[in-house]
Parts: sequence; C-alpha cells; structure tokens
Amino acid sequence: MDLLKQRILKDGKCLGNGILKVDGFINHQVDPLLMDACGQELARRFAHVGATKVLTAEISGIAPAVMTARHLNLPVVYARKTKPITMPDQVFLTLAPSHTKGRMVELIVSPEYLAGGERVLIIDDFLATGATINGLVRLAQTAGATIVGIGTLVEKTFEGGREALAYLGVPIESLAVIRSMENGQIVFAED
Amino acid sequence: MDLLKQRILKDGKCLGNGILKVDGFINHQVDPLLMDACGQELARRFAHVGATKVLTAEISGIAPAVMTARHLNLPVVYARKTKPITMPDQVFLTLAPSHTKGRMVELIVSPEYLAGGERVLIIDDFLATGATINGLVRLAQTAGATIVGIGTLVEKTFEGGREALAYLGVPIESLAVIRSMENGQIVFAED
Repeated sequence: MDLLKQRILKDGKCLGNGILKVDGFINHQVDPLLMDACGQELARRFAHVGATKVLTAEISGIAPAVMTARHLNLPVVYARKTKPITMPDQVFLTLAPSHTKGRMVELIVSPEYLAGGERVLIIDDFLATGATINGLVRLAQTAGATIVGIGTLVEKTFEGGREALAYLGVPIESLAVIRSMENGQIVFAED
Repeated sequence: MDLLKQRILKDGKCLGNGILKVDGFINHQVDPLLMDACGQELARRFAHVGATKVLTAEISGIAPAVMTARHLNLPVVYARKTKPITMPDQVFLTLAPSHTKGRMVELIVSPEYLAGGERVLIIDDFLATGATINGLVRLAQTAGATIVGIGTLVEKTFEGGREALAYLGVPIESLAVIRSMENGQIVFAED
C-alpha cells in the first residue's frame, strides 16, 4: 500500500537491531486518516473470509483494528495485558514475549466477548516474529473460535513471522512488507 | 447523545462502588460504528475551539480519540503508561491514580509529538474524578501547549471531575452524563 510505504520512508526511523520507529504516525502519535485508509485496505483484502470478529492486542493494535473493523462493520476485541476489575474471574490468558518490555506479558480476553463458533480476523500493527499474533491465535482457539485471517500494517520478513504462522493455512496480509533494514536503509519486498 | 445512552442502558452494567462496566462496546470489545458516531459528535462540539492536536491516555482513550481526530482531521497522541524503547530518554512524565489498578500509573509523552504552541483537545472514555485528565493537562502544559477543550464519552457527575477541571475555563463535553447509579439504576442528567 503506497500511502503507508511512502509515510514509512518519510517519517519512519531505523533504530538498529531491526527496530523500526513509527511513533509519529502509528505507535504514539497516530495519523487517523492514514489509519482509516489502512483499515479500509485491510477490510478490502479480508472481505471474503467471512469474519465475525476482529481480534487485536492492546496497545498499538487498537487503532488499526478499530479502523479495519469499522469498514467490515464487525466488533473488535482487544486482548488486555492486565486484568481490569470489570473482567470476570475466569478468563482466557496466555503469555507472549514483548519486544519493547523485554519480558513475557499476559494477553487476556474475557469469555464474554470471544466464543466458540466465532470466525476471527487478527489485526495488529506489526508482523515481526509472530509471537504476539500466535498468542492471539492461542486465545481464540482456546475459546473454540476459528482463525480466518491475519492482517498487519508493517511486516518485517527477516524476523520470520510469516513462517511461524504458516501452519494456520489462512491468508496473511501486510500493507508494507519490509525485507531489509540493513545499514538503516528500508527496503520493501516489492522493490 | 441518544445512541450512546441507549447502548449504556442496554449493555452497561453497574458493578457497585460507582463502577460502570462498558466492556462490551467501549473498553474491551469495541463497537467501531458507535465509536465513530461518538467521534463525529465530539468533533462537532469542538469544531470551534481551534485544536491542533488531540491528546488521550492509553488504553481505553485510544478508540474514541482516534475517531474524534479522524473527524477533525488532526493527529492524536496517546500518553503511554510505560516508556517504549523507541522513545527518547528525555520525556514529559506525570503520575495519575488508576481506578482499575488501584495505584499510581505513569503518563508519558515524547516531546517529539507535543510542543509549545499546540492547542490541545483532550479526549477520553470516562470523566470520573478527573484525575487522569488532569494528568494529561499537566503534560500538555509542561510542553507549553494550551488546553482548548475536554471531551469524554461518559461522565459520572457524582465523582466531581467537572469541578476538578473547572479551573481551566475550557468547554467540557460528555456524550452521556450519568448523575446517579444508586441501587444499580443508571440515571442520566437530562432525565
């Protein structure tokens, strides 16, 4: 998706160790019109999968997931990393490694909002190693739901997430696919 | 705003101690069309204040803030509660009490995205005691920005947030104003 790729080239920053800083338009400051366009494009790519719910993880997944869900007219659930007092005692919980925190974090979903029979489209900001998304997959499968697709804004192919999720046999779509960030140079897969 | 009030009556739950559970459409599962309608209405009410940026706090503020910002065509910044590795060492940081965590949490904004001269519209899901919003006010003022308005989805007048923010002298708008939740009965201010 050219709009996103151009913005990454303009405002993204390679911080080394494969870290792409997109805090100016995705992760801390959000460009809502860009995010809406990304949501529209992800919705278009997954229009055929028959999803009944969008699932993401707080925090950075919320904006793209809500925008995608808006265009699909579906509810979106974001997995919490701490259990709020409004959640029942019995929950779906899994652990996933956090890049930014350098430790395992909990991903928690209430059974009230993720049920057997749901067809779940997972949306997140990044597809890197696939560890967070695989955590969401485990939550959905524990609930008895079926994964029908995985969509992200930015994929870093050199971290192997697509291979780690291939066992699911579902479509995986990313709007900007980066195949290399060596020497601080962003190279997209189509280039 | 009738759409939101009807949804609160239908799907909201009073858990006691003034806690209103809206996890089915705002806080854990999000109804993106409702959220978009709320953003449109908040944008309408604040169209005249000349905002240059929307400011909110992760996590529950993100969906309504992004939708409001979309209709105002403004960038939105969400204050982080933990400092990610992509953020510079020098940040704006303040402490605010968290209802759901029962302790103080940090609210952190990067100086990259909140500068002097900005006219800041604060958007959040709830106006209760006003403590989180006052934290956002301190961050913005420390950055040299001016607060031009405060908008929330749900206000609980009996927790005094409006009075705690009155010193700012800016418009405060809430789409559903609850004046009582005694005996599990939600009573809106206009009733």
